[in-house]
Amino acid sequence: MSRRIRRTPFTDRVEQHGVRGFSVVNHMLLPKAFQPTVEEDYWHLRKHVQLWDVSCQRQVEIKGPDAARLVQWMTPRDLRKAKVGQCLYVPLVDDKGGMVNDPVLLKHAEDHYWLSIADSDVLLWAKGLALGSRLNVSVEEPDVSPLALQGPRAEDVMAKVFGEAIRDIRFFHFGFVDFMGTRQLVERGGYSKQGGFEIYLNDSRLGSVLWDLIWEAGREFNMTPGCPNVIERIEGGLLSYGNEFTRENNPLEAGLANYCKLDGSIDFIGRAALQKVASEGHVREMRGVLFDGGACPPCGKPWPVMAGGANGPQIGQITSAAWSPRLERNVGLSLIDRAFWEPGQQVTVLSADGAARPGEVSALPFA
Amino acid sequence: MSRRIRRTPFTDRVEQHGVRGFSVVNHMLLPKAFQPTVEEDYWHLRKHVQLWDVSCQRQVEIKGPDAARLVQWMTPRDLRKAKVGQCLYVPLVDDKGGMVNDPVLLKHAEDHYWLSIADSDVLLWAKGLALGSRLNVSVEEPDVSPLALQGPRAEDVMAKVFGEAIRDIRFFHFGFVDFMGTRQLVERGGYSKQGGFEIYLNDSRLGSVLWDLIWEAGREFNMTPGCPNVIERIEGGLLSYGNEFTRENNPLEAGLANYCKLDGSIDFIGRAALQKVASEGHVREMRGVLFDGGACPPCGKPWPVMAGGANGPQIGQITSAAWSPRLERNVGLSLIDRAFWEPGQQVTVLSADGAARPGEVSALPFA
Repeated sequence: MSRRIRRTPFTDRVEQHGVRGFSVVNHMLLPKAFQPTVEEDYWHLRKHVQLWDVSCQRQVEIKGPDAARLVQWMTPRDLRKAKVGQCLYVPLVDDKGGMVNDPVLLKHAEDHYWLSIADSDVLLWAKGLALGSRLNVSVEEPDVSPLALQGPRAEDVMAKVFGEAIRDIRFFHFGFVDFMGTRQLVERGGYSKQGGFEIYLNDSRLGSVLWDLIWEAGREFNMTPGCPNVIERIEGGLLSYGNEFTRENNPLEAGLANYCKLDGSIDFIGRAALQKVASEGHVREMRGVLFDGGACPPCGKPWPVMAGGANGPQIGQITSAAWSPRLERNVGLSLIDRAFWEPGQQVTVLSADGAARPGEVSALPFA
Repeated sequence: MSRRIRRTPFTDRVEQHGVRGFSVVNHMLLPKAFQPTVEEDYWHLRKHVQLWDVSCQRQVEIKGPDAARLVQWMTPRDLRKAKVGQCLYVPLVDDKGGMVNDPVLLKHAEDHYWLSIADSDVLLWAKGLALGSRLNVSVEEPDVSPLALQGPRAEDVMAKVFGEAIRDIRFFHFGFVDFMGTRQLVERGGYSKQGGFEIYLNDSRLGSVLWDLIWEAGREFNMTPGCPNVIERIEGGLLSYGNEFTRENNPLEAGLANYCKLDGSIDFIGRAALQKVASEGHVREMRGVLFDGGACPPCGKPWPVMAGGANGPQIGQITSAAWSPRLERNVGLSLIDRAFWEPGQQVTVLSADGAARPGEVSALPFA
């Protein structure tokens, strides 16, 4: 541990809860596991509610007269109808159409946005673009650290703490709550498919106080400390920047065509590159892979996916995988070559433990 | 471990050598410790030679007609007399004069540069600047992974492997060697003060082969696997981006005034901001702190530095610290307020273990 890998406003509490390890996202600690196994944690997340320190979802604040222009320039998603109070999943691409990040955009005002980012320095990207093109805009990282409540009882905990009005916040929208004399942004969303909220705490000094308040309220709902669950997120088809796709990949192959407005009605970085990909047809696309051979090990290096048997041609690579105790099969994510991407395609996964595991291509999310 | 945190061409070998943990730099694994203690490792580094996987020092390649212009725009250091084959330590700053990174610049040609970076996405920064200002330049991350030999016997190992000509490479210059039919860049330098070389391997597939070749040659010189040593680097006054300074700090307070040309003869991002700081006088500056009270714990959160006793005014914060077995005191790095920054100033360090440790301000590097 060093200062370079930043602690969060909630790290003290997370340590008190016996966190078993951290990952690093955006130069910041992300809890990786607590006492239960990933499987126990998975079942708990589907039934109850968990408190997650996702401060590493740093905010890039873009503000000023040219803010809307800069934000639209950064993404192929059409933002013309975006409303204040709305959250939008926005692929960011470079001039070659490669993915730079896949943040959630929060529209505060016509001239004020947050990008809630995955693991790359969007701050430097946006700042560089703004400086280079002399846009009249400020680009900063505010003191904002999201704390997530995830799981079916999240709404009840939130209502208990912040009042019933919280129930009116729609999915992928945000509102505000009062907390200790401060005003805090609350979004309905989060990095699971089990429902929940994220509180974008805007004052680091209040981290432990906020955690304790939620924690106490959560006791009757069987709340546990948690973190993004690899089984649940793969089952739900939630992609992870750096794992499923990188700057080597374009949003069309990442399965994000719905977020790409390529008809020429908006201008953005990488438009020509993406139009070319679209006109030629992208050659691979994100898919699920269901496969057998017993519980697979963690997927640290990509695992080749072969068409048919182990000697078939390579048609993809698994970049995240886990044993699903619900489906009783392994679930994985992979870009799959066009000729083989139909669900049902028989494949063999060559996992790092040396096993050749039979399986098949699946649609996402997994059933 | 996930694909997002990238393995290096040498990770397989590093694991075979029993690495005890990794840190993450530039979304990539950096070995953190091997079998010996940090102290044993420190003494070994000063006497023998070590092999370090520093692939996380990623290269940002800037190439094309406007390459020189972009690189000069990114740094306050005067590059007009930089020569091909030279390495230059270059602070990168933003428009407010805040540090974005502190890479080593390698000049390949008048229109071709590498930035060998610390822990922030300079690739996105440079790309954003280039795209925004429509410079005619390509900005990419090549398949280049530095492998370092550090310690007094590094030159002997290098000469044994690559021939005597290696001895002619001057400090902070680079040359080339032949390796398995490829041409590899070799720099004399590295992240210690014990002397050594970095081989910028330009083909990931050759990682294990290169490692094995060096390893075999190093046996007679008592080579060990290693990694940057926190005691040695603090003693040597080697700063770490993210630890000693961040975007909140300017290069003048970071002690890098010698790398800032503020007379108006060159233009760069943040010039006005730095000129203002220079004319007003920077209010704090990087210093060493020597302090007692027995071996200090690792410095994960900054520790307050007080003038005089524990109740004195706070004049800085220790951002990296270690027990020096050679000086038999703790050594730390801190920005220190102007009125107190003279070496010899008595201070008290409030370390995380609750101790109030008496000490004094020191020049850098430590004696």
